[in-house]
Amino acid sequence: MNRFGLLCTRCAARLPFRYSDMKCTCGGTLLVDYDVEQIGRSFSKETVSKRYPSMWRYRELLPLTQDEAIVSLGEGWTPLLRMHGMEKKLPLKQLWVKREEQNPTGSFKSRGFSAAVSLLKEAGAARAAVPSNGNAASALAAYAARAGIPAYVFIPQDCPPLIVQECIQYGASTYLVDGLIHDAGAIIEEGKHEQGWVNVGTLKEAGRVEGKKTMGLELAEQLGWKFPDVIIYPTGGGSGIVGMWKAYKELKRLGWIDGDMPRFVCVQEEGCQPIVDALSAANHTAGEEHRTAPSPTGMRVPQPPDLELLLAIVKESGGTSIAVSRSDIQDASYSLGSLGVSASPEGSATWAGLTALCDSGWIRPEDTVTLFNTSHHMKYTDVRLSKQPPLIRTYADFLLHSKNL
Amino acid sequence: MNRFGLLCTRCAARLPFRYSDMKCTCGGTLLVDYDVEQIGRSFSKETVSKRYPSMWRYRELLPLTQDEAIVSLGEGWTPLLRMHGMEKKLPLKQLWVKREEQNPTGSFKSRGFSAAVSLLKEAGAARAAVPSNGNAASALAAYAARAGIPAYVFIPQDCPPLIVQECIQYGASTYLVDGLIHDAGAIIEEGKHEQGWVNVGTLKEAGRVEGKKTMGLELAEQLGWKFPDVIIYPTGGGSGIVGMWKAYKELKRLGWIDGDMPRFVCVQEEGCQPIVDALSAANHTAGEEHRTAPSPTGMRVPQPPDLELLLAIVKESGGTSIAVSRSDIQDASYSLGSLGVSASPEGSATWAGLTALCDSGWIRPEDTVTLFNTSHHMKYTDVRLSKQPPLIRTYADFLLHSKNL
Ligand SMILES: Cc1ncc(COP(=O)(O)O)c(C=O)c1O
Ligand SMILES: Cc1ncc(COP(=O)(O)O)c(C=O)c1O
Ligand SMILES: [Zn+2]
Ligand SMILES: [Zn+2]
Repeated sequence: MNRFGLLCTRCAARLPFRYSDMKCTCGGTLLVDYDVEQIGRSFSKETVSKRYPSMWRYRELLPLTQDEAIVSLGEGWTPLLRMHGMEKKLPLKQLWVKREEQNPTGSFKSRGFSAAVSLLKEAGAARAAVPSNGNAASALAAYAARAGIPAYVFIPQDCPPLIVQECIQYGASTYLVDGLIHDAGAIIEEGKHEQGWVNVGTLKEAGRVEGKKTMGLELAEQLGWKFPDVIIYPTGGGSGIVGMWKAYKELKRLGWIDGDMPRFVCVQEEGCQPIVDALSAANHTAGEEHRTAPSPTGMRVPQPPDLELLLAIVKESGGTSIAVSRSDIQDASYSLGSLGVSASPEGSATWAGLTALCDSGWIRPEDTVTLFNTSHHMKYTDVRLSKQPPLIRTYADFLLHSKNL
Repeated sequence: MNRFGLLCTRCAARLPFRYSDMKCTCGGTLLVDYDVEQIGRSFSKETVSKRYPSMWRYRELLPLTQDEAIVSLGEGWTPLLRMHGMEKKLPLKQLWVKREEQNPTGSFKSRGFSAAVSLLKEAGAARAAVPSNGNAASALAAYAARAGIPAYVFIPQDCPPLIVQECIQYGASTYLVDGLIHDAGAIIEEGKHEQGWVNVGTLKEAGRVEGKKTMGLELAEQLGWKFPDVIIYPTGGGSGIVGMWKAYKELKRLGWIDGDMPRFVCVQEEGCQPIVDALSAANHTAGEEHRTAPSPTGMRVPQPPDLELLLAIVKESGGTSIAVSRSDIQDASYSLGSLGVSASPEGSATWAGLTALCDSGWIRPEDTVTLFNTSHHMKYTDVRLSKQPPLIRTYADFLLHSKNL
């Protein structure tokens, strides 16, 4: 019996493993399904605790056959930072920030692409292409470079230029798209046969969800093999939510953790909030009126590839979804900065979501909450300085300027 | 007996520990000196191997009295990446890149400031100031923010704007200086009493060298408690070299590793190469003639605070120093990028130095070499794209553009 196969999340059909083409004939998404009983016989918390701190310490729960195919740049085992001050202020039992920006490509996307590109390498794929709001593009670019596989990345034209620059630096064939991420996806779908591209877009292949799953595994391990009560995650295509939910199902099946799953909270930016809208018809109508153009972040995914699955996960977990404004995100980024954390707009959105949900009482003082800072603040600066620092030459200059600072 | 005191690197005087003012009356630099015999009784490789992967796993070798004073943002235990392809090409026994850019502030400076700001907190310091080429400034800004200590940072005006922006984001009082890093240092020295600043500049206080020491400790542990044959390090003020050298002295005194110390190689950029010049009078004269304006990187330190100590370390280790050109650095950054690594100019300089030293035969095929990528490529992009990617809307557009790519 194989260690893993595929399982349809909609019709529960079982299929042998394949690494790409994750749509079931019923229209549902196929996910990797492990023979957890078999794995559990030789794989324990003890085993894991002795391994090297990297996402590949969860090797048995990653769908690769040959170890030699692993494409690694030093991803995973990112710090989990306790925010004592804010904990007391809100108050909360515990508040943690998972610092995903400390991955090799400056975002959590490193995890998904370490897994996905390993599968490409194992399969001998010739070329990979991805539609992306930016961070997935640069992660594909880096991992494909490491593996020696040509990468093609397609990014909305208003993507922060630094992230575009990253793709170029890693040597990817880089295209800006006059449209949104689904327009980029359509370009790849149209060209994939002619170009020999494997489309590694969200839920198009098996690796990315599995790689992102390790965020959930790590978080549980770092909390002493416990679930937090609430996970707040900036959601775009949603594979992070799917991955972490899957991680926790597997941990329960392994018998490593009992108790309730965390409540998953999807944060989105006002103006592009398909999950919020779908969860609340009322919000929908209200939303349409005040809708503003959302900023070019990883949360801007108007058509998530499997919205149905996302909604099911959020509901089953007792979670919710919340939209925050661009200016709340901006404020939150300074709040996190003033505590020493370089938060991307997406990471900042989780902070804004947290404060709103504490205010509304949805998050309670006895909750332990984890926020995901999915990328570096740096990547989004437009590099026009937000404030021009004084130009000085002497200490006298400093004194002069320090007065009107 | 105390676990640690101070020892002068020039006259060997011993003093009780103090966290700032590291100049001995003889003019030499005071470094922290541990009672290694006492420490070794309860601190072993075994103990370390079971601890959380962070620079604080080497707690006994860090000069803090109270654990509660530790100011941490998730620094250290960065990946050590093997570069198999390049290894075969050069050839080398082993080639490793230490990915210091994966620290919380995107550079190895996180380590020094985690230690330094912890000492500030323990001492109840009111304000900290630093002269910096950028990365030290943003690291002070972040750690001081975490500790709630006001930070003042002084940076040459041509510093990459993104790094300046980081300091602002963390809420530091940020000043650009019309001059170089020693001009910035002079401003702080002049103002420190009036302003109540602790000057946390290179070798001015006890923590930074000790924090950087953990790069060396980690590297040895990650190599299975072995030294590499050669360490190539982009050198500015030189506290990284001092720190790693000190780390290895301590490991030898602990009896954890025998054998030769690594040969330390200081890489600098042509045009600002005080170490190269001092090691070779011949080079000196040649250098002066062709001297170009060096770029604003962490290597641009015309007056290292303790050049004598640096030279002694390099010589004692059988190491060397080499200057590489701006265009070699640029090329190296693309070479590393095309292998999936986001290398700063400083990290790229080590790659350029490596190829030159392999060409000259100074590095031999049987050597194991480690390069330090001290910061993220991202931080240095001027965000004018090096190449404007084509703007497309459809697959037909792609076909059109892919031809003249
Ligand atoms: C920084 C960042 N955060 C969050 C997201 C959304 O992640 P997911 O696709 O898992 O919903 C993205 C996706 O591009 C991203 O780049
Ligand atoms: C990225 C980077 N590399 C290297 C250096 C030089 O380090 P050191 O002061 O240890 O010589 C610096 C210092 O600013 C730096 O920022
Ligand atoms: Zn199905
Ligand atoms: Zn002395």
